This record gives sequence, C-alpha cells and structure tokens, in this order.
Amino acid sequence: MKIKQYIPAFDWLNNYKKEWLSGDLSAGLTVGVMLIPQGMAYAMLAGLEPIHGLYAVTVPLVLYAIFGTSRQLAVGPVAMVALLTASGIGALQPATPEAYLLLALTLAFMVGVVQFLMGVFRLGFLVNFLSHPVISGFTSAAAIIIGLSQLKHLLGIKIPNSEHAHEIVIAAAEQIGETNLLALGIGIAAIFIIKLSKKIHKALPGALVAVVLGILAVTLFGLEAQGIKIVGKVPSGLPGLSMPSFDMGAWQSLLSAALTISLVGFMESFAVAKAIQSKHKDYQVDANQELIGLGLANFGAAFFQGMPVTGGFSRTAVNDQAGAKTGLASIISAVLIVLTLLFLTPLFHNLPNAVLAAVILVAVAGLIDVKEAKHLWHNDRSDFWMLAATFLITLSLGIETGIGAGVVLSLGMVIYRSTRPHVAVLGRVQGSNFYRNIQRFENLEQRPDVLVVRFDGPLYFSNISYFKEKMGELVSRKGKALRLVVLNADSISHLDSSAIHALSEWVDELRKMEVKVHFTSVIGPVRDTLNRWGLTEAIGKDCFFMSNQQAIDAFDGKAVGNGQARSFEEYVLQAN
Amino acid sequence: MKIKQYIPAFDWLNNYKKEWLSGDLSAGLTVGVMLIPQGMAYAMLAGLEPIHGLYAVTVPLVLYAIFGTSRQLAVGPVAMVALLTASGIGALQPATPEAYLLLALTLAFMVGVVQFLMGVFRLGFLVNFLSHPVISGFTSAAAIIIGLSQLKHLLGIKIPNSEHAHEIVIAAAEQIGETNLLALGIGIAAIFIIKLSKKIHKALPGALVAVVLGILAVTLFGLEAQGIKIVGKVPSGLPGLSMPSFDMGAWQSLLSAALTISLVGFMESFAVAKAIQSKHKDYQVDANQELIGLGLANFGAAFFQGMPVTGGFSRTAVNDQAGAKTGLASIISAVLIVLTLLFLTPLFHNLPNAVLAAVILVAVAGLIDVKEAKHLWHNDRSDFWMLAATFLITLSLGIETGIGAGVVLSLGMVIYRSTRPHVAVLGRVQGSNFYRNIQRFENLEQRPDVLVVRFDGPLYFSNISYFKEKMGELVSRKGKALRLVVLNADSISHLDSSAIHALSEWVDELRKMEVKVHFTSVIGPVRDTLNRWGLTEAIGKDCFFMSNQQAIDAFDGKAVGNGQARSFEEYVLQAN
Repeated sequence: MKIKQYIPAFDWLNNYKKEWLSGDLSAGLTVGVMLIPQGMAYAMLAGLEPIHGLYAVTVPLVLYAIFGTSRQLAVGPVAMVALLTASGIGALQPATPEAYLLLALTLAFMVGVVQFLMGVFRLGFLVNFLSHPVISGFTSAAAIIIGLSQLKHLLGIKIPNSEHAHEIVIAAAEQIGETNLLALGIGIAAIFIIKLSKKIHKALPGALVAVVLGILAVTLFGLEAQGIKIVGKVPSGLPGLSMPSFDMGAWQSLLSAALTISLVGFMESFAVAKAIQSKHKDYQVDANQELIGLGLANFGAAFFQGMPVTGGFSRTAVNDQAGAKTGLASIISAVLIVLTLLFLTPLFHNLPNAVLAAVILVAVAGLIDVKEAKHLWHNDRSDFWMLAATFLITLSLGIETGIGAGVVLSLGMVIYRSTRPHVAVLGRVQGSNFYRNIQRFENLEQRPDVLVVRFDGPLYFSNISYFKEKMGELVSRKGKALRLVVLNADSISHLDSSAIHALSEWVDELRKMEVKVHFTSVIGPVRDTLNRWGLTEAIGKDCFFMSNQQAIDAFDGKAVGNGQARSFEEYVLQAN
Repeated sequence: MKIKQYIPAFDWLNNYKKEWLSGDLSAGLTVGVMLIPQGMAYAMLAGLEPIHGLYAVTVPLVLYAIFGTSRQLAVGPVAMVALLTASGIGALQPATPEAYLLLALTLAFMVGVVQFLMGVFRLGFLVNFLSHPVISGFTSAAAIIIGLSQLKHLLGIKIPNSEHAHEIVIAAAEQIGETNLLALGIGIAAIFIIKLSKKIHKALPGALVAVVLGILAVTLFGLEAQGIKIVGKVPSGLPGLSMPSFDMGAWQSLLSAALTISLVGFMESFAVAKAIQSKHKDYQVDANQELIGLGLANFGAAFFQGMPVTGGFSRTAVNDQAGAKTGLASIISAVLIVLTLLFLTPLFHNLPNAVLAAVILVAVAGLIDVKEAKHLWHNDRSDFWMLAATFLITLSLGIETGIGAGVVLSLGMVIYRSTRPHVAVLGRVQGSNFYRNIQRFENLEQRPDVLVVRFDGPLYFSNISYFKEKMGELVSRKGKALRLVVLNADSISHLDSSAIHALSEWVDELRKMEVKVHFTSVIGPVRDTLNRWGLTEAIGKDCFFMSNQQAIDAFDGKAVGNGQARSFEEYVLQAN
C-alpha cells in the first residue's frame, strides 16, 4: 500500500494488538507528566511564556504520531532547540513579548518548511556530515551555555540573554552580590529532589514532585513577597489558532537559526529514534519520512501557539522504558496535556522560576561528555582536536558558528588526509606470495631491480603531486638497478581526469628511464576509467596483473599459470 | 651550500658554460622583442598606461632570474593577471589615473607579500586544490572575457569595463552602429599579420611587425585625425622609484584580488616551469622557492611603477625554443627593454590601440580549450560538469567567483564520492584463491553461508550510515543461511572515531544473528587504529586474516598453513 509509506501510523493502527494498550497507556501518562515541567522550563529557556511549552506538546505530538516512523519517539521542546530559538530570536531584539512570540511561531513554521522539504527532496543524508566529535563538542558546549543561561533564575539576579559563555559569566560575576539566597535554596533543593527521585526509580516524575513542592512552598510561606520570581498567571484553555509572520525581512534574519534548528533538531531526534528502533526491530525508521514527520509537527507548533519541537533524548528513553509500543502513547501524552490546559493551569501561578531552572540544569548536566573527549585524546588525536575546536568555538562564538566550524573542519580534515595517503613499499613474505609493508614486518624479501609499492587512497587532483613526489623519491632511492615498478592498486578507489594525465606522464617518465610499470589488483571502477581514457592500451594490456607475485613472475619471463594468476586481458574482457 | 638554496642563481652563475651564452643571448633578445608589444598590450588590458607594462619587465625580470628556480621561465605581465588586476581595481572606481596606478602598485605589492609568505610558510601545495577541469573551465572563460574586453579597442567604441561577459556583449551590441571601420580594419590586419608570421616562423616577432606597420600607417596617413585611438605620449627614461599605498581600506578591498592573482599567477607560472624543466633535467624547480622568486618579482614591480607579473606560458615556450639555458636570458631581455625605455619610447606615440588589442586577442584565442571539454564529456562526466560549472560561473559572475566555486565544487565532489564508496560482493575464481566482483566476472564460486564483501574507501563519519545500510542489505539478501561475513578491508584506508563506534556496533549486531565477521588484508594504519581502540580484542584476534581464502578456511576449521596464510597475531606482533 502506498498510503502506508506516507502515513506510517496506518501500519500500527491496522495491526494494533490489544496487549500493546497497557504499555502505550502507562508510557503516555508517564511522558505526559514529564512534559508539564519540561515544556514550561524549555519555553522559559526559549524566552517565551511557559504556557507555550505546553501548547507545543498538543497538536505537534499527534501529527508526529501519524506521520513519523518511530513508535517510541517523544516529540516536544528540547533544551538545545530552545536555546537556538532564544539566540535566533534574541538577535533580532523584538520590542514586545507579542513580537517575540510571533518570531517564535515564524521560526517553528520555517523549521517545518525546511524539514518537510528536506524530507521530500530526500536530503536526510546531510546529517551524516556531522561527525561524532563535532556532535560531542557542540553538545557539551551548548549544555554549558544552557546551564549558564539558567544562572539568573537560580540566583534570582538579572543577566542579559547571551549565547556566549564568557559574557554570561562576566555579567553573573558582576551581579553575584545581588544573589537571592532564598531562590538559590529553592533551586538547589529542586535539583536535589529531581536527582534523588531518579535514584529511587527511573520512572519517578521527580521534576513534577519538585514543581508541586515549589508551588506549595511559595503558596504556604508567601515567598513571592520575599522577591522569589514566579511563573505568574498561566492562561487556561486550549491554544487558539495562530499565524506565523510572512514578512520577508523576518524570514531572512531567522533563516540561519531555522536551518540550524532543522538540522540539529533532526539529528538529535534521528539518533535516538534509530537507537530505540534497533532494540525493537518490528518497524523501520526512515530518515526522510522522519524529516516529514518532524516538519509537520513544527507546522502544528507554528499554528497552535507552540515553539519549535523535535524528538527528545531522555524523554524518548522514558517512553520506551515505560512500555510504549506505538504512536498511541504520544497521543495519550497529548491528551493529558490538553486536560492540564483545560483544568490545571491556575495551579501553576505560584511555581518558582528557580524550580524550572533546576529542571533544565539537571537535564543538560548529563549532556556534558568528558568521557568521549578523554577517549579521543588517547585514541584519535585528530578527532580530539575536532571536538576541542568545536567545543571552544561554540562556547565563545555561539552554537551555529560552532557547528558550522566543526563541519568545515572535519570535512577539511577528510580532504587534507586524502591529499597525503599512506604509501607502503612492500616486500615478499618468505616462502609465500604475500607482500607486506617493509616498515612493519621483518625478514621480507626485496629485489634491487623491483620496487613494489602500494598507494592507499583515491588518486585525484589534490594528491597527484604527492603521488609523483613520493614515487620519484622511492624510485630514485632504488637507484640505477631498478627495472620494474609494481603499483599495487587495490586501495586506489578512484581516478579522476587530472590523475589520468599524471599517471600517463609518470609511466612515460619511467619508460624513458627504461623502467617498466606493472599494475596489480586494479579494482573495477578504476579499470573502467583506464579503459575509457585509452590508458589501458597506452600502458599496455600486458602490464596489468591480479597479484604482485604474478606481475613479478611475468617480468621474469616465468609462465603465469591459470588459477594462481590471470592476465588483465581475461579479466577485463569479462568485465561488463 | 645554504646560499644556493635561497639564491638559485648562484647555481648557474658558478657553473656557467661558455657554450650557453649564444643561446641565452638569442633567447633574451627574442623574448625582449616580444615583450615590447605584449607589455604595452597587457598594461592596457589592466587599465594602465602602456608604459607600465614595459616598466614591469625591467627589475622584476632580474629579481626572478636571481631568486627563481626555473632557468627558462619568462616573467612579466600576462593576460589573466592583467584582467584580474583590471577587475580588482575597477571595483574600487578610483577617481583619477594616478589613483588607479597607485592601486595597481599596491596590488603588485600585496601579491608579492602573499606569494613571498606562501613560499616561506611552504604553502605551495595549495595550488593542488585547483583541479584540471576547474583550471580549464576558468581559463577558457577568462580568455573569452579578455577577448570581449578588447572589443572596444577593436571596434573603436566605448564600453564600460566589466568582467561579466553578458554585460560587455550587451553594451557592445548597443554601440555596434558606432563602429569605426578603420579601427576594425587595422585590428583585423594586425591579427592577420601576427597569425601569418607565426605560420612562417615561430620565432618571428609578428606582434612587433604589426606594431611597426601600425605606427607607420597612422603616421603616414594621418589616421589620428580620422578618429583612430592611439597610445599617445609615452614617457622616456627609466621608471622612478614608486611606493605602494599602505592604506588599510585599500588593502582590505584589494585582498580578494591579491589572493586570486597570487594563486592563479603562481599556478600558471609553476605549470609551465614544471613542463619546461622536465625537458631539461639539469636543475629542479621548487614550488616554494618559485613563490619566493615570483613574490620578489612583484615587489620589484610595486617599487618600480610596474604591474603584477608572473611567468607567461607562450613567452616561456619561445624563450626555451630560442635556446635559453639560464636566467641570464631574462636579464638580457630586461636590458633590451631598458634600452627601449631610454631611446625608443617616442616612436610608440602613433601606435593604434587596435593593434595592441589584436596582440591580446591572438594571445587569448589559444587559451580557449574545447578539446579538454570534449574529452571529459566522453570520459569523465562528473569532471565535465565541474568544467562546465566553473566556465559558466566565471563567465557570468567573474573570475574570482568562478575559481572559488570551482574549488568548492570539486572538493565537494571528492567528499560526495567518499560518502558512497564502491562496494563489491566477491566470489572465488574457480580453482584459485583469487576473489573478484561477482557483478563483473562470470563463473565465480559463492557459498550460501559466506558473504565476501569489499568496501573501497576510508570508513569515516559521513559514510558509516551508507556502510551500515549497504551491509544490512547484503546480509539480509543472503538470508538465514549466512554464518560468516568476510570483510575484505584492503581498500579501507582510514578509520575515524565515528567509524570505530559504528564498526563495533555492526559486529555486535551480526553476532546477535549468530553471524561471524572475519576481516582480511587490513592495512597497517587501520590495524593501529583498531588496536588503540581495543577493537582488535573486542572483535577477537582470531578474526583477522591475510586473505579471503584463509578467512574462509579458518571458518571451515581447515589448517591455515605457513606462507600461504598467517594469523593476525603474527603480523600484528611484527608491526611496530
């Protein structure tokens, strides 16, 4: 059925099993309870009224449940996306809270458009360009920035919003004398409660407990009068329809934030969806359909007064552990939020901001990944530097710049590495036909008249001069006795047109020095290229062999028997 | 001697042979005669008074002869650099000719700084990032733009300077009615004369003949009165000392042009220097010392009222053919120009601009390279599109943008290609231990319980999802009978930390399906990476083999004898 491809929910709706219901129900309620404090906290982090975090987990959840491919993914506001929202909108300095909200809705709409179109045009693969070290580096840095951004709520002081760590630290240091110790006490108590309940049982809604206790404390002891900042009036009822702005100027200035949120949000979401799916195996997650599902969820946020959303890491894990089997769990979470919006919002009036800050702090503390950095330091120094550079740039210049620099650096490293591939001179393992690197193995046989060399990488425009230089060096080191160069080509994965020119020049140069060149183990696509350019003929069909030993035997005039060795002719003719 | 390394001229000065002198003398005079019309023409192309083209072939030539490594390279103004100079300065719209000249000197100085520093910091390799197709594409487009820029002189009409082909064509079309037929006639006659003398003899100074005839025609028939534009007063005597501007604003706006000229100029020069050197072999050209030599030549231009210079293609070929053996030839050319400046400049008063335009047109016509495009269309379609894109972008958006786009596109293609490496399922060549691609060869033996697969490229962050996807597909196609996957790793040239994570996950997944994984022909650097991360131990030391057959024999419980097959243990222990 074609429809299943576009609406993955049909797949589980049509085959829904009774025994799934209890799991879906308990997971849906658990995540719903989690979403109340988290939604409000992340809205606050994004610079919005807390209620918009709740609105964002109504319609978007249902849309993702219908159009997304993961059955356990819990969609909603997440810390990273909330921070990116705050920094993207903050840069435009909207004059009023209404203007700020309009920009947030516009951003959600743009994220929806970008993700939906990426899905339609099958650009899900773009996420592959974010390497492990880059992700780890910017996640850790973003966690620190997010944590710092909550200092003002925790300390009860005023710090202007910023996504540059040093600016926040400096501003906080200047104001530290103004700290409201009561707010700090409430915050620390909340952190303690959340941590403790996690230790007692993973599914315990510690954040909700902290929220309830916080509200009680403010109400019973009249803490608002003592300068404790509270959430204040939370409107009751369902979100009304909202419209994003279609002002071109706003779109232009939000574009970079929208692209970053789309990509980072998708990446975070897809990573967790993949991880959970690999445990279940009764369905497949598809990168491009995921983009469509998340894109539609963001449309839902844009038109129902929400904020940009994506799949959350910890929330999804809880959803899965609590037994979610299908998207029904998410729909149940949304229903719980709708009930909350209808009947419970007045209760949140006295919720202290410090408690919401505690919710955020606990969530992001787990994102700082020192272990990966240590691992890389010991095992892959160049990847460590990628992580460090991304981390430092993110911390000092902001998340978007950090991610951008990380991607450019890591792709630059890939290019750099390919400009100087590993080159090995090979010798024969005694009594065998194996050839191995003479720098790594002892007792290998080498002949003064034969140079066997392996070039480990594609040969293309930016490494041909390295190839020529290196070969020149090896040839001249061999001296006048040299009569045959065997180029072991099995790891040359590609030849471009520049390489074709260089290769034929090189063969000509050696010929002038009366040195033959034999090619061995040339892979199919490279053989095709050589054939197309006529280089096979120019070099000589009798100069291609299946193994190094065969190439040398042929040079020695020995018979090259069937089975152990075959001529190029034979295996080229067999190629299509 | 250390000094020879910094002053390559000592090398030939100390060993100068008498028999070289006649060659150096005749080459020096021939090139000097060529330089008179070319210098003036390229100065005009750059938007300067013709005399600065002559100044640029005095001191700079001597400096290059001393500090450059090529003995035949003929340095001076060239068409591409002249055009880049015009477009770089034109963008700043200097108010007076004096201001224009100052910017040209500043540009020459900046090019000198960039090239000199690139040489000192050994950045000569950067030129490797310009691939064959990109060079061909932008050279052809630049030749067309240069040719179009001379239309105004040839037709005797007024067209504003532009480096965008369509703008010039539109402006020319609007003015075509104003064409001065006499100017056009002179231009065509000059082209004819230059072409004809080239046919008669290569060393014949056709351009000079055209110049002399042009001057005679203007003088004898009083053509200036008929609206023919002439060069006018050419100052007599040697160039006075000049100073570039050190205004930061000017530097900033010229920076991009300076970088492009440095790189493109060096590339053009180095390519021809290499080509000529490979014929001679009695000396070496060194990329970094070449940068230093060209950088110093540009300093000479900046301080002696010249314009940016580099090694010219056709001029160098003439120098070599006329017998140049050392840098003395260039010094002789410079002396000839000095004599011209001292005694002959008044003669150029009546030289028609149309003749200089003809000199340029003939020079650039040869740069349009249709053959390479055709070759690529037939043999390497993706390189053809690189060429076409660079060509079209250069033509419509200018040379710097064209080169930049070309470099980004071709590096992007390298990255793209590495995201989906070639993957081959292998089968055994009957009666041998060779394994080959089952899609290319017939009659290969395959077993239902064994999958032998080769992955042709480095395994790193942007292709691990492709690796997993492809492997998953191949494994599931094999079905339930599968018990062993042999990963032929000889063409996996690198593993990064993301690949390490992915690889260990993949092995674990297969293990859960009770499928073993054997690795064969893992190259040294990759073995090191596996060892460092502890993956060798995790996968099992007994899962690594030297050949596919050995991996399968071990799986079958057959003895794996010495010579034909060795265990990983043995060859890892031997590695340093």
